Amino acid sequence: MPHKKPERSGLTPFFDPRSIAVIGSLKEGFFGGYVVIKSLINAGFKGEIYPVNPSYREIWGLTVYPSIKEVPQRIDLVLIITGSKSVPGILRECIQKGVRAAIVVSDGFAERDEEGRRLQEEIVAIAGQGDLRIIGPNTAGVANPAKGLIPNPYEMGYERVKEGTIAICAQTGMINPQAFPYGDLRYGVSKICDFGNKCDVDECDIMDYLERDPLTKVMTLYLESIKDGRRFLKVSKRVTSRKPVLILKSGRTGQGARVSASHTGSLALDDRIFDAACKQSGIIRLENFRELFELPKIFAYQPLPKGNRLGIITFTGGVGVLAIDEGAKYGLSVPLLSPRTRKKLDAIFPGLGKRIVDIGPPMAVVNDYMSIYSEILKTVTVDPCIDSIFNVIWTGPSGEFIEEYLKIYRELQGNRVPVASWVYGPRLDSINEMSRRLEELGFPVFPDIEMAIKALGVASQYAKAKGGDQ
Amino acid sequence: MPHKKPERSGLTPFFDPRSIAVIGSLKEGFFGGYVVIKSLINAGFKGEIYPVNPSYREIWGLTVYPSIKEVPQRIDLVLIITGSKSVPGILRECIQKGVRAAIVVSDGFAERDEEGRRLQEEIVAIAGQGDLRIIGPNTAGVANPAKGLIPNPYEMGYERVKEGTIAICAQTGMINPQAFPYGDLRYGVSKICDFGNKCDVDECDIMDYLERDPLTKVMTLYLESIKDGRRFLKVSKRVTSRKPVLILKSGRTGQGARVSASHTGSLALDDRIFDAACKQSGIIRLENFRELFELPKIFAYQPLPKGNRLGIITFTGGVGVLAIDEGAKYGLSVPLLSPRTRKKLDAIFPGLGKRIVDIGPPMAVVNDYMSIYSEILKTVTVDPCIDSIFNVIWTGPSGEFIEEYLKIYRELQGNRVPVASWVYGPRLDSINEMSRRLEELGFPVFPDIEMAIKALGVASQYAKAKGGDQ
Repeated sequence: MPHKKPERSGLTPFFDPRSIAVIGSLKEGFFGGYVVIKSLINAGFKGEIYPVNPSYREIWGLTVYPSIKEVPQRIDLVLIITGSKSVPGILRECIQKGVRAAIVVSDGFAERDEEGRRLQEEIVAIAGQGDLRIIGPNTAGVANPAKGLIPNPYEMGYERVKEGTIAICAQTGMINPQAFPYGDLRYGVSKICDFGNKCDVDECDIMDYLERDPLTKVMTLYLESIKDGRRFLKVSKRVTSRKPVLILKSGRTGQGARVSASHTGSLALDDRIFDAACKQSGIIRLENFRELFELPKIFAYQPLPKGNRLGIITFTGGVGVLAIDEGAKYGLSVPLLSPRTRKKLDAIFPGLGKRIVDIGPPMAVVNDYMSIYSEILKTVTVDPCIDSIFNVIWTGPSGEFIEEYLKIYRELQGNRVPVASWVYGPRLDSINEMSRRLEELGFPVFPDIEMAIKALGVASQYAKAKGGDQ
Repeated sequence: MPHKKPERSGLTPFFDPRSIAVIGSLKEGFFGGYVVIKSLINAGFKGEIYPVNPSYREIWGLTVYPSIKEVPQRIDLVLIITGSKSVPGILRECIQKGVRAAIVVSDGFAERDEEGRRLQEEIVAIAGQGDLRIIGPNTAGVANPAKGLIPNPYEMGYERVKEGTIAICAQTGMINPQAFPYGDLRYGVSKICDFGNKCDVDECDIMDYLERDPLTKVMTLYLESIKDGRRFLKVSKRVTSRKPVLILKSGRTGQGARVSASHTGSLALDDRIFDAACKQSGIIRLENFRELFELPKIFAYQPLPKGNRLGIITFTGGVGVLAIDEGAKYGLSVPLLSPRTRKKLDAIFPGLGKRIVDIGPPMAVVNDYMSIYSEILKTVTVDPCIDSIFNVIWTGPSGEFIEEYLKIYRELQGNRVPVASWVYGPRLDSINEMSRRLEELGFPVFPDIEMAIKALGVASQYAKAKGGDQ
């Protein structure tokens, strides 16, 4: 990539533009410039919005300009949703106008055919002539909820993405707001970025940017390919020493890699090399798509564990055994609780356990179950023999415990050891409510027992690799 | 186990009793005989219910008997929820009364301490003297929804478990109605059975029984230990040749096995031996707790695949690549679609794909998206080059497509190849509604991309092992 010099512009205009021009169809529908502008307005974007389309005069109360050149003010970011063949000409105008950042939503480039590949090379060359960076083509774009920047090209059906500290990036639009119910979850994100075909901005650029982004505490990426292996190793090594980097990589198999090449137009790295690179640079490698959205929560909401000793609070021995097995995969061990804790637990209810704390038995027979539960929880969470806690919560036949649980957990906020919870019970509405509200208090809830344990496991591994500088 | 002779009674009285005696506390609360009787009545149990408790005369309009002996009629099944020390005496009375089946819910046996272990040996010896079988102790019991037999000892907050063809068994009560929201799901079960400490009835007995149970199409088990390795191998080999057997086994690690021994009082098998046994006998081994409830759906609702060729219908290339990678783990390959299919697809919309069918591009630009979708689906599902279909469904910004989707899928019922779906979108309520309603039509929906692929993968492996006698 001869045009790529270190002095090239950073990604700030993509995520924090003071003005944005939207070039493309303004017809009402599920997709296009019309939707982008509506989403920006709904999300409360404070900067200037310049719709560009020769067939319109006004939309959403905004003046529509026939072309980029006609926009009288400075433009920080353009978002292009036109036919692929119009893109080179538009980018040339952008450069003349001094634009530094372009999101090319349009498809029909290297992912389509040979002609598209040539077109993609052409836009890369054009960008290289000016100081213009491109995200895409073939992308659903970016989001920065803290700035009301949700320029989503697809109708999403909700207005707000909660602000948070998790950055989610992918070589697919499956992480963008039209594909994931951010609006329904207590799920805060700092940035969203679909690289698309990543003809210019790639995984290294985004890691670079997010490393310095003060809003981002943890980043999670879905990749089908690595653009520059050497640079990836260097950048990821540096970034992981400051912030956790979680990566799901597909295109592992021969067929997967070939199909990936055809749909994003990029070449996949041999999976073994990538795996070695992850180990070397301290990247946390994910195993399935849901983990992309779930595992970062442990880093975003909870302190890093100081060691690998796992405490388990459960309603049933079976889940405790599953948790021990699973923890072993990540080097977690389940220690004997401290003598002090054991003595206190015995005083609360005999036989609660010395290692796994099983609160099932008292629940079945004790009247004032909730005060017992509260005492148990407080006792275990301050045990000096454990570094993290896997916490199982039963919501009860009609969710009657939820308010009391929340009162107890409110007192536990700011706890020294990370807590990962799994919520179960006989009613889906109670499970969902308890999970949402517990996450509002900053206690992440995972959809599976195994994922909760994995969260604590990778947090422990990350903390260890970081060398205890937390 | 010297008392265990082949001529011992079968499990029919546990799952299809004409009369059931419930022995234990009748005090109102979350747990106990009171709850068992209420659950039986609510679920519409048609047999006789005999509450047994010396301190009551009547409950729920039923006569309460002071002891088993006093019950004038024949008793097929007793359910015991008393203190552990009362259990031996009660079992002796049961034998005198000619009872053949006892569910011992009471805890405080081998899972508790040395004394409990002796007590457990005692009840095994007592049962051996009569022709009495025991499930438990330390169990949440059984369920047979088709008979309204939901004698749940814990309050569950709903009344009905949908009838179906999946049997769920475990060495834990985490599969019983107080722990899993059967009432909220389109999830039909044939039998539920928590073995508890499995002092008598064990995994082999239940496999034996379910093999012959006409309502059960597939069985799924969570085990911490195998009671008799040799018998397990023999029984499971025979059963898997008729019905799929899915097993999640914990106690894999040294620590997990030790803790398991302490909480159910049974010894775990070396995990490598168990793994070899699974391969030898055709058992499908599960990897996490959620799979227990999810993976059987592919066997319960869909035909077995005739081969390993996976078709993919997706809204985005990224998910297609993930699916290919994942499929490779189970020997699935993604073939080129037939020339006829490719030609038809090209006529519907150019560039839909030759291998992965990506309906994202037309969705963004076509007006009558749903009729296009319908044509694509009908074309792909009859392609002779594929044996199963991974189907991705986007629910849209306000669930507006749901009714139209369902119309299309209704026409697809009885399709020759199994379909596993994954539903996503920007709104949780739409995802949940679409998933529920699609399952009502008999199309299983999986919570993860990877689990949907695994379902098709294990179905293909099972069909192959069975030797194409479907």
